[in-house]
Amino acid sequence: MKTYMECIPCFFRQAIEAADMIGVGDKQKKEIINQVAQAIPEFSLNSTPPEMGQIIHAIVRTVTGVADPYLHIKQKSHALAMQVFDLLAAKISRANNKLLTAVVLSIAGNIIDFGVKNSVDVKGEIQKILNREERAIKKEDEKLFQFNLFARKLADAITIVYLADNVGETVFDRLLLEHIKKMYPQKKLWYAVRGFPILNDALEIDAYNAGINNYAQIFNNGYDAPGTILKKSSPAFRKIFRAADLIISKGQGNFESLSDQKKYPVFFLFMAKCPVIARHLDCTVNDIILKCNQVYK
Amino acid sequence: MKTYMECIPCFFRQAIEAADMIGVGDKQKKEIINQVAQAIPEFSLNSTPPEMGQIIHAIVRTVTGVADPYLHIKQKSHALAMQVFDLLAAKISRANNKLLTAVVLSIAGNIIDFGVKNSVDVKGEIQKILNREERAIKKEDEKLFQFNLFARKLADAITIVYLADNVGETVFDRLLLEHIKKMYPQKKLWYAVRGFPILNDALEIDAYNAGINNYAQIFNNGYDAPGTILKKSSPAFRKIFRAADLIISKGQGNFESLSDQKKYPVFFLFMAKCPVIARHLDCTVNDIILKCNQVYK
Repeated sequence: MKTYMECIPCFFRQAIEAADMIGVGDKQKKEIINQVAQAIPEFSLNSTPPEMGQIIHAIVRTVTGVADPYLHIKQKSHALAMQVFDLLAAKISRANNKLLTAVVLSIAGNIIDFGVKNSVDVKGEIQKILNREERAIKKEDEKLFQFNLFARKLADAITIVYLADNVGETVFDRLLLEHIKKMYPQKKLWYAVRGFPILNDALEIDAYNAGINNYAQIFNNGYDAPGTILKKSSPAFRKIFRAADLIISKGQGNFESLSDQKKYPVFFLFMAKCPVIARHLDCTVNDIILKCNQVYK
Repeated sequence: MKTYMECIPCFFRQAIEAADMIGVGDKQKKEIINQVAQAIPEFSLNSTPPEMGQIIHAIVRTVTGVADPYLHIKQKSHALAMQVFDLLAAKISRANNKLLTAVVLSIAGNIIDFGVKNSVDVKGEIQKILNREERAIKKEDEKLFQFNLFARKLADAITIVYLADNVGETVFDRLLLEHIKKMYPQKKLWYAVRGFPILNDALEIDAYNAGINNYAQIFNNGYDAPGTILKKSSPAFRKIFRAADLIISKGQGNFESLSDQKKYPVFFLFMAKCPVIARHLDCTVNDIILKCNQVYK
């Protein structure tokens, strides 16, 4: 997905948020803003938003000297997700369509991020999402929630690469991977995280903490963007990505950076988090999306 | 008021809004964004937001060649305000405290702006504001609505300068000026508008269209910022401003640019339009403010 004009104010908002997370003073904050502003004229709107995200957060780290501003948020997110782990596992085991429930929960896991920042009732929000999605499936809305296609492609695939998003959500991913492994013990599952700290995105340590290693082989993309920028990823990552029969891509950042790639099939599982992406997809902010990239080819 | 860090994303949002108003293509829009970005490092946060507003809109005009991007919005705003003119006049003539109602309405006039852009029920919104303010006055909330002090200072003043804000609101201003002139026929009333087109702010033509000239002498500040930047205003404007016994300053832009000035008394009448100013004043977005600058001295 290209960068829309409305993303630009949001880039500055993100830079300020990251600076606030570290608690820097106004002088350093203005220096960050100035450097982001200087990067804007050189940034093409044909690039994807995560490419600018990478630049912004590299500026924040360089100006402040803080390597991982979201470390505390990540720790809180993991703890919050672990609090609902048993509840989620029970929901899947009681569900009529266990794969569907595991998929919806893995997307709903994105609200952990929001929950940590805004002290919302995470359990309540998850239940609301489950109720809404059950209705959506009954209506057989296949435009933005292509579950049946996903289930078929999953059955066919031998090697699957699962692209992680945020810490906390990792715990929800683990449950989906666990269920896939139970359904298809013979499939080869890979779980890809970022190579270096970026926002609250998962690193290898976070994947291990969530117990992913019991179901999938953990690896990293060798890069620090809040998305999957293939040309900047490590050759090892690209090799595994290209060889996969199916990509399960979690989160808006991975969608933004991969939606125009030719690799097929990639299923994008995410919550539409902002008005720009909602307009791009013709959906509503906070909608749960499960969309195959076929239409983008 | 100084510029807060959170104003910076909003500067870009304003630039995009103005470009959209003109309907320019992505190439010109990105050029506008780039020039605004280049201005950021040179802009001190000790300056006021309208100083950056002036820079942004000068860039929009230069890049697009359109001298008055908000002309259409201004025409619609005036027409919408004229539609409620009789209703407003009746509200004042029936009020127990006519001055209070005229003051509250003149502030409520700020929603014309919002009404034109978002097709809201302007009459309904005005009635809601009147109801809310009647409750506020009964509670004698003098912190953000210093009406009694205003009424006393108004009675004492001989020369009054009234600083205009948006077109449409001008019609509401006319009713307040008409009432002041009825109460105190001997007072000298001045009505100051911007010197050149900026946003949807009133120019001399708009003040005449609203019939202000029947009650006050219209003049302009010789400058094109969305506020009153004294050092940039014309010597003639500054002379009249400094000689006045009382300044009635309408709108957030005039507050932002004048709140730290030493001139006294200046009464700021405006709706708090964004989270930054709401936090600055310890109020809620959309609150009606009538505040003397004494506390800022």
